[in-house]
Amino acid sequence: MIGIDWGTTAFRAYRLAPGGTILDRRESEGGILSVPPGGFPAALSAAIGPWLAEGESLVLLCGMVGSRQGWQEVPYLSCPAGPAEITGALTTLPFAGARCLLVPGLTTRDSGGVPDVMRGEETKLIGLLAELGNASALACLPGTHSKWARLEGGRIASFSTHMTGEVRAVLLEHSILGRLAKEEAPMDEAAFLRGVRRAREAGGMLHHLFGTRGLGLMGELTPEATSSYLSGVLIGHEVSAALADGVPQGPIHLAGSATLTRSYALAFGAFGLDHRLHDPDLVLRGLVLIAETLP
Amino acid sequence: MIGIDWGTTAFRAYRLAPGGTILDRRESEGGILSVPPGGFPAALSAAIGPWLAEGESLVLLCGMVGSRQGWQEVPYLSCPAGPAEITGALTTLPFAGARCLLVPGLTTRDSGGVPDVMRGEETKLIGLLAELGNASALACLPGTHSKWARLEGGRIASFSTHMTGEVRAVLLEHSILGRLAKEEAPMDEAAFLRGVRRAREAGGMLHHLFGTRGLGLMGELTPEATSSYLSGVLIGHEVSAALADGVPQGPIHLAGSATLTRSYALAFGAFGLDHRLHDPDLVLRGLVLIAETLP
Repeated sequence: MIGIDWGTTAFRAYRLAPGGTILDRRESEGGILSVPPGGFPAALSAAIGPWLAEGESLVLLCGMVGSRQGWQEVPYLSCPAGPAEITGALTTLPFAGARCLLVPGLTTRDSGGVPDVMRGEETKLIGLLAELGNASALACLPGTHSKWARLEGGRIASFSTHMTGEVRAVLLEHSILGRLAKEEAPMDEAAFLRGVRRAREAGGMLHHLFGTRGLGLMGELTPEATSSYLSGVLIGHEVSAALADGVPQGPIHLAGSATLTRSYALAFGAFGLDHRLHDPDLVLRGLVLIAETLP
Repeated sequence: MIGIDWGTTAFRAYRLAPGGTILDRRESEGGILSVPPGGFPAALSAAIGPWLAEGESLVLLCGMVGSRQGWQEVPYLSCPAGPAEITGALTTLPFAGARCLLVPGLTTRDSGGVPDVMRGEETKLIGLLAELGNASALACLPGTHSKWARLEGGRIASFSTHMTGEVRAVLLEHSILGRLAKEEAPMDEAAFLRGVRRAREAGGMLHHLFGTRGLGLMGELTPEATSSYLSGVLIGHEVSAALADGVPQGPIHLAGSATLTRSYALAFGAFGLDHRLHDPDLVLRGLVLIAETLP
């Protein structure tokens, strides 16, 4: 089979053996925003044509490709949802070369009734659920838009998105804080943890952000340490808010890029929280599991 | 006398009669970032030369003109500071056409020991102190970087900056939230208040920001209402944080542009807080009061 995670700015396709062994991969920056309207079948053929020619006949896609800006907008499935609900709601896409199925995204509402959405992370969580079974668990998938999901009884009970990564990026690129920070500075763990501690103090996030400038002006934070400190402030606020209604019994299940999971693991340590790091390729596991349920 | 508020992106000069009556004004976008290094005396001459030729001999300046990027960096004065400390710390600038004095900015440290800074707002607060006398009071000066100041015994005891206006601007211009918002939509009071209420719910600011997108995707927030809702979320978080360690006995003293003070007044109402609106030209009053103390 062919499994594809087609996001906003990235395209990742994998040719998979039964069981999930990766036989080949195609990764590019050809995210959905780079595809012209109506151009999705052609873009897919160009990317995986050779695999189809060699006999692959099933393509399973997840991610923003199922959004309004993607190939075809498919409705969100409401939480709680697990493998049965998700595999029961696959959408067949019109594609000449193979059977082509799209995994639906999920929606939930928080205690204030405000809707939240995910596309792509539900497939990662299916991979995670296969490891965790029916146990209640809390998962954290950091990213541009970090997802925190509560898993219960083998399903995704609810989730919450935090705009942490994108807020960090726009502040560093476009605000006065970016002028203080040395670009492309390596991660400074001490500065990051100082930011995490800062997030737990009084004052609020909007004040803590400006404090980054105060520290820089007074020579109490170096340009090299500024982006790490800012990350700590933002991730510290995210973790505080995500755990405001209770700390989980077991570890927080963490999966994502090496850089981000390292930061989140440090933050969890500062909060006295246990975590368990999972394979960053959970999405492949989820795609294979969904494919295995197909008739 | 001539009073000047020379900020990062704006230049505002006033020819003032004794007592503060405005005789003439020059306002431009010639903020300090538009002045080349060493170009401040020439820029000042160009702006106020005619007034000097007619006999004005005292120029009092406040704002970012006293920062590292300005005419001359002058040290911050530490809080608590009042009119006596501030007028005792004026810096004479080298300028051929007149006696030219610069008002120092202030610095303070919050409960976490993090430094905060202001340049220009201290002059507005001197204007406000003249109205309030020695009473304890809380002042809110909204802006790109909103300032909350605690006034005690006729001095500025401490203050706190919130990056609200700048965070709103970068999110609308550069983040995924801007793509949902209709640009230049007029203020929508109902949407603004909905955002303020949202800020008081659980979830944290980074989640509330993403919720703006969830509401938009689900058709529960219109593009026209999105920027007002976002303002409400951010200002709601600012007000919550600024009052976390106690609500003031009297009204919150509010001064700033008509647009911003209208928004903050609405937010205060939603929090059940009294406020008193002050003249937006407090800075002139402060400059005149400082000038009156000069020998």
